[in-house]
Amino acid sequence: MKIVIDGMGGDNAPQAVVEGACMAVNEYGVDIIITGDKDQIENELKKHNCDKSKIELVHTTQVITNEEKPVSAIRRKTDSSMVVALKMVKDKKADVVISAGSTGALLSGGVFVVKRIKGISRPCICSSIPTIDGGYVMLSDTGANVDCNVENLHDFAIMTDIYAKRVMGIENPRIALANIGTEEAKGNDLVKKSFEDLSEEKSINFIGNMETREILNGVCDVVVCDGFIGNIILKTLEGTVISLLKTLKQAMMSTTKSKIGALLMKSELVKVKDLLDYTAVGGAPFLGVEGGVIKAHGSSNARAIKNAIRQGIALHEGNVVNEIKTYIENMGDKEA
Amino acid sequence: MKIVIDGMGGDNAPQAVVEGACMAVNEYGVDIIITGDKDQIENELKKHNCDKSKIELVHTTQVITNEEKPVSAIRRKTDSSMVVALKMVKDKKADVVISAGSTGALLSGGVFVVKRIKGISRPCICSSIPTIDGGYVMLSDTGANVDCNVENLHDFAIMTDIYAKRVMGIENPRIALANIGTEEAKGNDLVKKSFEDLSEEKSINFIGNMETREILNGVCDVVVCDGFIGNIILKTLEGTVISLLKTLKQAMMSTTKSKIGALLMKSELVKVKDLLDYTAVGGAPFLGVEGGVIKAHGSSNARAIKNAIRQGIALHEGNVVNEIKTYIENMGDKEA
Repeated sequence: MKIVIDGMGGDNAPQAVVEGACMAVNEYGVDIIITGDKDQIENELKKHNCDKSKIELVHTTQVITNEEKPVSAIRRKTDSSMVVALKMVKDKKADVVISAGSTGALLSGGVFVVKRIKGISRPCICSSIPTIDGGYVMLSDTGANVDCNVENLHDFAIMTDIYAKRVMGIENPRIALANIGTEEAKGNDLVKKSFEDLSEEKSINFIGNMETREILNGVCDVVVCDGFIGNIILKTLEGTVISLLKTLKQAMMSTTKSKIGALLMKSELVKVKDLLDYTAVGGAPFLGVEGGVIKAHGSSNARAIKNAIRQGIALHEGNVVNEIKTYIENMGDKEA
Repeated sequence: MKIVIDGMGGDNAPQAVVEGACMAVNEYGVDIIITGDKDQIENELKKHNCDKSKIELVHTTQVITNEEKPVSAIRRKTDSSMVVALKMVKDKKADVVISAGSTGALLSGGVFVVKRIKGISRPCICSSIPTIDGGYVMLSDTGANVDCNVENLHDFAIMTDIYAKRVMGIENPRIALANIGTEEAKGNDLVKKSFEDLSEEKSINFIGNMETREILNGVCDVVVCDGFIGNIILKTLEGTVISLLKTLKQAMMSTTKSKIGALLMKSELVKVKDLLDYTAVGGAPFLGVEGGVIKAHGSSNARAIKNAIRQGIALHEGNVVNEIKTYIENMGDKEA
């Protein structure tokens, strides 16, 4: 197995990427290819100890930024660290590509370079959110498709179910539909139709509608929604956690008494912060394309990169791409 | 001015409703009508001191529950505390109706009993969320309209702008569009078209797209969105705050050391909790109908009811209904 990583993608590239790759070599003994500026990456590699024979370096001359238009960046910048990495998966020189670079560009590259699996209406990006019971809830889609139909949501449910089973190790994932009430008749037109559609799909454990009020409480394993809603949920949630923790920190630092109190509670507060730490998850897989594609958070540190690599290994070992293809084939048999 | 309040609506009715009404009479000297079961309400009234001549009681025999289908409940239960209260506004016997009962029923009642303002495509419900800088952000719509078009969002923006100015006292409200990125080209089909449309509306201070990650940070005064998105934002936000505070509480109570720490920080923590307290806001106005309609939170306590009454007074004194009508008339003049 080989993992290729976009050495120039993300706010902390190439430092965090290279350090994360070295950590992954030490912990998982995996073979890694890093694409990017040779000099910069070699310079970073010198700073870390690991079996360097496990790391291959592929020099590229271009970098795709967050400011560029995704589709044209992927088409134009053929010698960018991201496009070269994506091509390696397309050409089976690597099994999984990881990038902390532009989300839009990576998704476009997933579709235009790696290519969509035939039979899947739309690939989706699946984000895992830590829940307060110590587990995770997976949310699909979180931004790849902003206008969806029932078939799209159906595909998201199927693919995320496979991912939950094969990568997250959940035996019988509870699949719910993001809605504004739990009753069957609730929601907008798309969600009402999807409720009916998912209720009829026997291959998944569809448990009905879920109000996003419950999202951190571990009431389901997978939340199905279009990419606009999913992105809104994800960002509202992240923003609320950040704003609330910031306010709490200010409150703790406001008086001498509260400072002493905060000091006494420190180890417990760190546990709460850790519980909600996105870096533990790694990244978000782009499901429905002909190879492993993982989007790491733009602000990934070395630990987040290392965890994204661990996730990449699990994605490959879990045979997720082939499992999705098998589902499509069986569906064809049923329909025929 | 007269405020009519649905005496039987809400989880804590009629106790909290009656107590809140008495508090409002004492604080604001307002005249209040309470609809509901005479015996129960009189029994509650006895428990509180206020000028009882300011409170009129209208006996009703029916109650609309959360479990009933909104439209049929409004049509069938003509002697319910909610319908009788709504009719008083329709018949100009009261200026504003407040209910903590079924949201769906109150919205249906707003449209079928009080009636839509001619020229407004769809009325909207506007929820105010406390921000961490001590202000509020208003979100429209938060559930009245789950499938919207550009015209609907336009009306929501105009009506909430008027509410923000006349009731919340904001001079030049910053109006933003809820989106998954700040760039103009971001979003689903509806949001992209709305961006263009709102950019051309000269009567409001449209500041562009807002990522919901920023919602608690006071970056804008009004967030425009359809009712499905708005409800998702509201519930994700509320759920995250509740889950996080619960986890923090557990962390604080987990060791003797952390308990002492929590004790030392108590007054500061209470301030944070107060900052995010929905009961301070009162309720959510239903804008675009021919009278004041305010939805109080289902779990409203007496303080929340009192604050909803204060808000009802401001809604009437701010002349919001007439201001909306004036806007529509002027728009007609322009178009003619």
